[in-house]
Amino acid sequence: VDAASSDQLEGRPVWAAVPGFPRGLGFVSHARALADTQSGQIAFLATPARTAAELTPTLLERGLRVIDLSGGHRLPAEQYPDWYGFEHPFPDALDEAVYGLPELLPAGALASARLVANPGCYATAAALAAAPLLKARLVRPGAPLVIDGKSGTTGAGKTLSEPMLFSEAADDVRPYRVGKHQHTPEIERALSRYAHAIVKVAFTPHVVPMRRGLLCSVYAPASDEAKPEDVVAAFDGVYAEAPGVEVRADAPPETKRTLHAPQAEVWGHLDPRTGTLSAFCALDNLVKGAAGQAIQNMNALIGEHLQAGLQPAPRSAT
Amino acid sequence: VDAASSDQLEGRPVWAAVPGFPRGLGFVSHARALADTQSGQIAFLATPARTAAELTPTLLERGLRVIDLSGGHRLPAEQYPDWYGFEHPFPDALDEAVYGLPELLPAGALASARLVANPGCYATAAALAAAPLLKARLVRPGAPLVIDGKSGTTGAGKTLSEPMLFSEAADDVRPYRVGKHQHTPEIERALSRYAHAIVKVAFTPHVVPMRRGLLCSVYAPASDEAKPEDVVAAFDGVYAEAPGVEVRADAPPETKRTLHAPQAEVWGHLDPRTGTLSAFCALDNLVKGAAGQAIQNMNALIGEHLQAGLQPAPRSAT
Amino acid sequence: VDAASSDQLEGRPVWAAVPGFPRGLGFVSHARALADTQSGQIAFLATPARTAAELTPTLLERGLRVIDLSGGHRLPAEQYPDWYGFEHPFPDALDEAVYGLPELLPAGALASARLVANPGCYATAAALAAAPLLKARLVRPGAPLVIDGKSGTTGAGKTLSEPMLFSEAADDVRPYRVGKHQHTPEIERALSRYAHAIVKVAFTPHVVPMRRGLLCSVYAPASDEAKPEDVVAAFDGVYAEAPGVEVRADAPPETKRTLHAPQAEVWGHLDPRTGTLSAFCALDNLVKGAAGQAIQNMNALIGEHLQAGLQPAPRSAT
Amino acid sequence: VDAASSDQLEGRPVWAAVPGFPRGLGFVSHARALADTQSGQIAFLATPARTAAELTPTLLERGLRVIDLSGGHRLPAEQYPDWYGFEHPFPDALDEAVYGLPELLPAGALASARLVANPGCYATAAALAAAPLLKARLVRPGAPLVIDGKSGTTGAGKTLSEPMLFSEAADDVRPYRVGKHQHTPEIERALSRYAHAIVKVAFTPHVVPMRRGLLCSVYAPASDEAKPEDVVAAFDGVYAEAPGVEVRADAPPETKRTLHAPQAEVWGHLDPRTGTLSAFCALDNLVKGAAGQAIQNMNALIGEHLQAGLQPAPRSAT
Repeated sequence: VDAASSDQLEGRPVWAAVPGFPRGLGFVSHARALADTQSGQIAFLATPARTAAELTPTLLERGLRVIDLSGGHRLPAEQYPDWYGFEHPFPDALDEAVYGLPELLPAGALASARLVANPGCYATAAALAAAPLLKARLVRPGAPLVIDGKSGTTGAGKTLSEPMLFSEAADDVRPYRVGKHQHTPEIERALSRYAHAIVKVAFTPHVVPMRRGLLCSVYAPASDEAKPEDVVAAFDGVYAEAPGVEVRADAPPETKRTLHAPQAEVWGHLDPRTGTLSAFCALDNLVKGAAGQAIQNMNALIGEHLQAGLQPAPRSAT
Repeated sequence: VDAASSDQLEGRPVWAAVPGFPRGLGFVSHARALADTQSGQIAFLATPARTAAELTPTLLERGLRVIDLSGGHRLPAEQYPDWYGFEHPFPDALDEAVYGLPELLPAGALASARLVANPGCYATAAALAAAPLLKARLVRPGAPLVIDGKSGTTGAGKTLSEPMLFSEAADDVRPYRVGKHQHTPEIERALSRYAHAIVKVAFTPHVVPMRRGLLCSVYAPASDEAKPEDVVAAFDGVYAEAPGVEVRADAPPETKRTLHAPQAEVWGHLDPRTGTLSAFCALDNLVKGAAGQAIQNMNALIGEHLQAGLQPAPRSAT
Repeated sequence: VDAASSDQLEGRPVWAAVPGFPRGLGFVSHARALADTQSGQIAFLATPARTAAELTPTLLERGLRVIDLSGGHRLPAEQYPDWYGFEHPFPDALDEAVYGLPELLPAGALASARLVANPGCYATAAALAAAPLLKARLVRPGAPLVIDGKSGTTGAGKTLSEPMLFSEAADDVRPYRVGKHQHTPEIERALSRYAHAIVKVAFTPHVVPMRRGLLCSVYAPASDEAKPEDVVAAFDGVYAEAPGVEVRADAPPETKRTLHAPQAEVWGHLDPRTGTLSAFCALDNLVKGAAGQAIQNMNALIGEHLQAGLQPAPRSAT
Repeated sequence: VDAASSDQLEGRPVWAAVPGFPRGLGFVSHARALADTQSGQIAFLATPARTAAELTPTLLERGLRVIDLSGGHRLPAEQYPDWYGFEHPFPDALDEAVYGLPELLPAGALASARLVANPGCYATAAALAAAPLLKARLVRPGAPLVIDGKSGTTGAGKTLSEPMLFSEAADDVRPYRVGKHQHTPEIERALSRYAHAIVKVAFTPHVVPMRRGLLCSVYAPASDEAKPEDVVAAFDGVYAEAPGVEVRADAPPETKRTLHAPQAEVWGHLDPRTGTLSAFCALDNLVKGAAGQAIQNMNALIGEHLQAGLQPAPRSAT
């Protein structure tokens, strides 16, 4: 790590904000970090979406490659006003951005990328669960997918708000932003890509009383020809070579199994009684759903093994 | 309370097993309790489904009225082998059983009932959420409903099993019994009744890390004519006079608001972008989802106000 | 309830802030409430300590009786600058205030009181645990008591701060304000009263990951003559007639048993191997540790049974 | 890893029981593993105490070195009947066992050891907190130490019991085994070693609602000469070179900071008002309190850096 920048934490050591980080490096301002950049470096942006959109062109001009963890490069320009509340300042960058869900990209797709839009946690889980069904054409054409998301509280970051207090969030399950969560168009765009067709989703996120971990339950009517064994084959096929996704053999995933892990777990099922497909993906929203996936994308940019530098989860005892 | 019976706890005082119960009464055996019954009493059965099915005819013959909290009288006879694993011993009783979801029954329907099948917690929540949509014909005809249930761990009772240990259930969300939960046919039967048509459901329960509380999220494609304001009107119409159900004005329900409460909270929504209806019901699985509803049914049997004897939730501070 | 006042919530209905409160009453400003007071009423103050100290003399002059839930009347005047950070404006009121821990007051002590200092949650638990040991002279004279408090997060109210976020407080136990918590002098004053001697305490509060509930573990060297059976006798003796305190027979208390309950649970033990006394009190910090005790004090003021109007805890199932 | 043995899991792959373990190795029976041992290997025993006591002499005879994670070699022979309920079968081995708390052992003490008694989680935390106070003679001579332990539920392993169910352990804090926990004599023996004097402890463990993590709060009367700066100096002195212990600068430790970490956090304080010392240690009971410390002991046996092979905690985000 050459530099870490934060206008808020400027001057403080990184380890004070990030326990476990080696001693030494301190935060500099964004302006200072920008002035010191050198061609060939990789910049990780974990800023508000608008800031990332504004910073990116300068970084690209200076010869850096950019991995944007914010929502700054995930949608087409025309959707920014509605879902993010601002006019995108550099629509050209959007055309160049590669949506960085490595398990669902063609091999080598990131090798020459300059700008990676690192997916959101809900979109990662929804896409990993739904893509096998769509790629194998198991979903009834034209039917919207129902996506019921369950997330721990770290999905909301450290913003202070009453509903995020322990006293309010413990012992509680609640849906939020029904019909208007900003990850909706991101999920639709990703799924449409894998389906080679327009896919609509009815996405309903829920917050559940745990710190980390996210489960997306995806439901859709099956096409008339779909059979239970097709579902198994679809998941096995898509993820056979994917080090970051584990297909469970005979049980749905659960979030605890993925805590701190750079892997997601997935599983699919067809209920012949009702003709309904269900698919599930569990992951750690802070690892495979965010920073860990950014590392995978960096590995893809520089030709390393996808999981290089990522620790397996410390799951030995419980 | 005239008697409390338990073959397991025979001889022990009730308050030792049920903290807060007044001192005095002790458990007797089922046989002894049965011998002492008197015509006109009301028997609450909270036994395994098979035991309840076997005990009920004798109780009815002796002139008691029965409220069965188990699954012993919720399905037609032919479904018992598949979903409960036994042949129902007294199919005639099934014809007589009234499904005791008082808010969805015609006024007076329980006044002369001898046998009440007290609904399960998931079925109560699913029915309270879905019934207004079905009664108002807002759901596309023939489409199965997707029901995503989230339950605290007390739904599983006190049976000892590794997944129910704190160390396993904390920090975890997991789907279970996908496509085969025994509440599925109960939900379908209840919804078919309110829809005056066959309703199929794809029901997927999830366990979430909290002790009490249950949320059902119901999703369905809307009929072509359905409009957002129809959803609001449907909920307000069905529950206008229902003391046990509160229709939220402008936000989905959350489980914490219903803890210890004899009320459920419901809310519906139509997403015009995808033509998807969503409806939510939160309740305390141990109160409105079980014992509290049994008290409401008793009140209906004896002509009392539905909430008589039920304390409002102690929600003053948090 | 004649009036509810809040400068912050003025104009809003009470039930919107206090779910479960009957519809009708709305908040008025403190000034308006004050203008409308009538002699003979009882005012509950749940304001910052300084505000309560300032409001009380006016209320008393107008003939009201006051139950102050804040720390405004719990200490002698000279301790306010150090522990609460302000000079007490009306030291005379402090002389009149009765410390309202009804189980430890002589019968009738509140019958003619005009001003009750309603104890804090930690002080209530610490006093209920330690008082029997001190009254029976089982503690080595002069030895400070070690009090290790464990509290759920509602003890901190709804103030927004990063450590109180679910993401920070879950999965965490941490000591705080070691050696300087403002309940320390309150506990010492209460215990000195019951010991008829100066009692010092080393009080260390800890926050644990639960919403409600508080446990104080009290440790002290035993006097040379103390015997295990003396401890049992001391607890049984002090609380024989106390409806708000349950002495456990053979096991320490646990917080879950007291959730929503207007009773505390206590238990004492002498370890003959080390000559160490330990005593424990569990209670719900929002009921017996705050509002519930205020109702008990009101009952004592007006000559009602101590638990009148207080619901037993809804503990039927878990 | 040459072999993994378990009579219960014989024949199953290790990764199925230990998620994250590399594929390949399977469990063999203890007998089979014993038959295949080779001189120079290191055996980790994580069995019941009695089994470990029985297996150890054979392993030593065959030239292996043994790290016993059970309580099989932590006490003198005469204490086994009282605290562990069996007569120790090989008292000679007890004389040879080195108590493996590496931060508190003289440098090189483990280099030639054949048998390491790996400390329990409570004893590790209690010793790391109390040792600096005792070594620096800050505790009043002869006074017993009060140790209030707070542990997550994984301290109890996966044994099925009602109090360990999520429904029972959530929202609950409770003391257990007051005055008779089997870690008491282990703590006393460890502390007596560091104090060069007999140390008695009144140890009271509590279970708190979290999966992992343990905090010991240690209280003792200070000697007359002890000053606050002595406490700081004592902690800094003892742990200056200890990679497995972090002395916090100005705040007590909290368990969340140590989750998954091979480090413990400690802090000490002298309250001059009451002359009471307090000291705190937080650690992950499954890492520094168990398996991680066993790895440290292995490293010490073979001359590696203490933290070799131990991952720093994944604490980047929360």
